[in-house]
Amino acid sequence: MDLVPGGHDLLLVEQDGDLSDLSAKGGVMNDNVCPENARQAIMDAAAECFSKKTVRRTTYADIAAISGCDARQIKKEFKTKNQLALTIQARDMKRMKQAYLSSMPDATPDKVIKYILRTRLNFVADNHERMYLFFREGLSGHQPWSKLLDKVIWDLSIELLTLIHKGVRDGLFRQSMDENIITRSILSHYLTGVVVIGLRSEEFDADGVWDFIEPQIDMLFECITT
Amino acid sequence: MDLVPGGHDLLLVEQDGDLSDLSAKGGVMNDNVCPENARQAIMDAAAECFSKKTVRRTTYADIAAISGCDARQIKKEFKTKNQLALTIQARDMKRMKQAYLSSMPDATPDKVIKYILRTRLNFVADNHERMYLFFREGLSGHQPWSKLLDKVIWDLSIELLTLIHKGVRDGLFRQSMDENIITRSILSHYLTGVVVIGLRSEEFDADGVWDFIEPQIDMLFECITT
Repeated sequence: MDLVPGGHDLLLVEQDGDLSDLSAKGGVMNDNVCPENARQAIMDAAAECFSKKTVRRTTYADIAAISGCDARQIKKEFKTKNQLALTIQARDMKRMKQAYLSSMPDATPDKVIKYILRTRLNFVADNHERMYLFFREGLSGHQPWSKLLDKVIWDLSIELLTLIHKGVRDGLFRQSMDENIITRSILSHYLTGVVVIGLRSEEFDADGVWDFIEPQIDMLFECITT
Repeated sequence: MDLVPGGHDLLLVEQDGDLSDLSAKGGVMNDNVCPENARQAIMDAAAECFSKKTVRRTTYADIAAISGCDARQIKKEFKTKNQLALTIQARDMKRMKQAYLSSMPDATPDKVIKYILRTRLNFVADNHERMYLFFREGLSGHQPWSKLLDKVIWDLSIELLTLIHKGVRDGLFRQSMDENIITRSILSHYLTGVVVIGLRSEEFDADGVWDFIEPQIDMLFECITT
């Protein structure tokens, strides 16, 4: 299956399972030593510390103090603070997606597409440091993060494609346009905004990145609207 | 001045000077110990070694043997092999651009835009390892490479904008479209193709990346053509 629907075959992604599977099987955390509730408590405690003090400044002792788990146990379970941060990121990305899918506005597909992209940008801004780690590892081809990046791009592609298809069916978008190419194009606008514009600066400026992305999306919609 | 013409103000770039200035002033190589002809000989020798053996496997002794310069002198001049590789990359990007600007086909702006992007993709493929280093450092915000990345994006934006403007003037493209947004859109297609699709795999597959980019560019041209 392609990274981007109807696209090339440079990178293949397994589409069954969800993001959290990456930690459960085949990923870096495949020999979990903690019960699941302890893992979640550690992740919650770490997320709190990371957002207060950054990943670099957080110590295992900080996480132990909040979670009530032993610092050595935490280190044994997650190997490094970066791995812990990335595991939290995978979990939170799944939660973010579930949250916005359940609160999707009842609007035309073009507006919903913009809502999804804007919501995702806010999520990136709220988790700038972890997002930066995630893209750095993923774009470097390091596993399991590269595979997770494929999965994130694939999921977004499917959401976009579904909405574009709905737009065509509802008579909003022209039937003559290739739905896969439109999907790919929106994806390119979004990814360039996030990776090349946003994550390069010290603070991720979601409004600034949206100012970069939105006019491109609007122009595209103008082109494909009936 | 904006990173992308007519765009946001997230990243500012000084536009005077050229790529090689980065090594001469304010960059990492501001205390050159070699005369310019020796520097060029070292860069030529290193480029040869890097493409034969990779940057990692090349030793200062290898470069010394070919350039005729002392290995310690080379290390003193360029600090690290990665810095040397990136300095060569900056020089070669400038050369690549001069070469294609002088051999630009006499064709309509849409075809010239595709020629430029395709030529740049081939250059990335020919210098995969150095390009990967360059984007990794640039996207991480490390100087002077982040500034150089801004410069590269800016230069490409100006080339694209000039051609789109010519297309509008010649009556090929519709006047009602925003030339800056079109430029930004082409840039997004290209950068996503290079960074997210191409540089993530072990071998940079220029044809595969072009297969990702070209249909998006074609769709855009279809939209803006009179």
